[in-house]
Amino acid sequence: MTTSFPMNAGDGLYSYSKNSHLQKEIIDGAEEMVKDAIIRKVDIKTILSSSNTLRITELGCSVGPNTFSSMQHIVEALKDKYLYQDQVIKSTNNIPEFQIFFNDHVTNDFNTLFRSLPIDRSYYAFGAPGSFHGRLFPSRSIHFAHCSSAIHWLSKIPKELLDKKSPAWNKGLIHYVGASNIEVVNAYVAQFEKDMEMFFKARAEEIVPGGMMVFISPLCYIHLMGFFGSSLMDLVNEGKLDESLVDSFNLPMYFPSPQDMTKVVEKNGCFSIEMMELRYTKSKLVDEVDAKTIMINLRAFLEGLLINHFGSKIAEEACARTILKSEEISAWMKVNYEKPSILFAALKRK
Amino acid sequence: MTTSFPMNAGDGLYSYSKNSHLQKEIIDGAEEMVKDAIIRKVDIKTILSSSNTLRITELGCSVGPNTFSSMQHIVEALKDKYLYQDQVIKSTNNIPEFQIFFNDHVTNDFNTLFRSLPIDRSYYAFGAPGSFHGRLFPSRSIHFAHCSSAIHWLSKIPKELLDKKSPAWNKGLIHYVGASNIEVVNAYVAQFEKDMEMFFKARAEEIVPGGMMVFISPLCYIHLMGFFGSSLMDLVNEGKLDESLVDSFNLPMYFPSPQDMTKVVEKNGCFSIEMMELRYTKSKLVDEVDAKTIMINLRAFLEGLLINHFGSKIAEEACARTILKSEEISAWMKVNYEKPSILFAALKRK
Repeated sequence: MTTSFPMNAGDGLYSYSKNSHLQKEIIDGAEEMVKDAIIRKVDIKTILSSSNTLRITELGCSVGPNTFSSMQHIVEALKDKYLYQDQVIKSTNNIPEFQIFFNDHVTNDFNTLFRSLPIDRSYYAFGAPGSFHGRLFPSRSIHFAHCSSAIHWLSKIPKELLDKKSPAWNKGLIHYVGASNIEVVNAYVAQFEKDMEMFFKARAEEIVPGGMMVFISPLCYIHLMGFFGSSLMDLVNEGKLDESLVDSFNLPMYFPSPQDMTKVVEKNGCFSIEMMELRYTKSKLVDEVDAKTIMINLRAFLEGLLINHFGSKIAEEACARTILKSEEISAWMKVNYEKPSILFAALKRK
Repeated sequence: MTTSFPMNAGDGLYSYSKNSHLQKEIIDGAEEMVKDAIIRKVDIKTILSSSNTLRITELGCSVGPNTFSSMQHIVEALKDKYLYQDQVIKSTNNIPEFQIFFNDHVTNDFNTLFRSLPIDRSYYAFGAPGSFHGRLFPSRSIHFAHCSSAIHWLSKIPKELLDKKSPAWNKGLIHYVGASNIEVVNAYVAQFEKDMEMFFKARAEEIVPGGMMVFISPLCYIHLMGFFGSSLMDLVNEGKLDESLVDSFNLPMYFPSPQDMTKVVEKNGCFSIEMMELRYTKSKLVDEVDAKTIMINLRAFLEGLLINHFGSKIAEEACARTILKSEEISAWMKVNYEKPSILFAALKRK
């Protein structure tokens, strides 16, 4: 069993569905890359050899609305590719049907997802509940898998981080970012590799030969997480929070580098790397120096974890304090926003 | 757009998930019939011609646990049929994979459904949100459709029932049962036929040639509904409820006879009727004269409708009063329980 970390449910003030602008920005930045990968690299004839339905999955879909926008773009790009492949314009009579499987943990708020499905969608929509670290679909049934802002979620916290006797004990921090102890980083990497071994084993069974899998992983989050950690330590220093509670909390996220991704793909051996690059998002959010908005966005997906560990009072205060740091965060973002902020990868099932 | 009438959500005292014994009884009674239909009538080789995955849907699944039991039995019967068809025992290596699509309205509580999926299930589970009166799946993608205690839900209330000037105005009653006015019955039948036209048109596209669709429709509910109506009229007679509110309320359910089913199937023309019969359930519940339990069961799926129309205070009182009628109901059931209580039908896509 893997642990799940759902986004804030429903559609209230701090819900994920109302606060996923940062993810939206990442998706907009990646949309063209996904389209490019489809146009250049997908061979529709091969993958559609035995049916007239294209089956797409969004792995780690959360509750929308971003997932609907991504799926609509993928459907359109695949339709274009189908119609214009081989320079022959085909009849639109025989256009494939699209089936989209929205995947997330069983604890995800599928009720909200289903109730907000676009009325005018051009695909059949399904929920696929379960951890993407295990099997979700029958063999050779998926033509295209999209995994945006999701691969960084680990299935669990590496035990060593919580063990005072381990060299990887992560005292005073809530993540590997800023950790001077390399053992902490190594523990995160090892968990990521273990998770990816299961992930790729499952996808290798599920994706048809020639089928594509695309990853969009936001590197820009990494350092922002640290600001929540420093707010928690502020509370410790003021005597409002026991330090051992911070020591025993670690964010279950690892943001892979291109080297990390290459390593896990090659270890699995069933996929070829068609495209892999680091990209900047020209962040409008950063231009507007709206660090507060971004931190409210992050809160939507961190708050559940914080409440779970610290209780709602401390979680609330840590979030409020982090948002008050918006000037400091703005200054940091101005310096750093030219650094790569998305890892994009397109793989093909051999 | 069709209207949806969800069961009581969650898993509380009066939730559908805790109060679906009557449906369970119906399912147990029908399980052997479904198995029999699969063994005698399904040609696995034909329907599996282009893949090694059998795709099954439960149309109107609600939230379980009954749907899980039905699906497990269908999977087992199809596996048996696959292994022993043509008297040749096949290798278990190549056994088909099973994909199950749990369908219900987007307002159904899919969160509860997904969180209670059996851990040891031998199939891949999906949610298929939407009205079964429209398209849900790609063309020719479903091998087996199961529709238990669901076909009787109408997509909406026929307007004439609410119109004082119409000959079909249903004054003082909440259903067609007990209506002396044939126009009321006709309005219900017309809506059922309209809904079934859409239903069969969609299924004819979705089900593979040779694929099977099974209906289990509980006739035993019909008269029990009337007891809720008489409780409402008691409140009217005591001056606690305005009669016009009862006049403007009608249950959106029609329980088809074998003749009704035959008519809609033949009108569609794409399915052959392989089996159709009326069956008794040897009701243990009735043996135990536990009318109270049965009425609590019915409450789980009527209460939402009653609250919606009458408000929660009147709904609560009408339900409480109906449950108090359990002696009267027991007496009625003792006389009537030998009457046919299930309509079973197995159709095959031509």
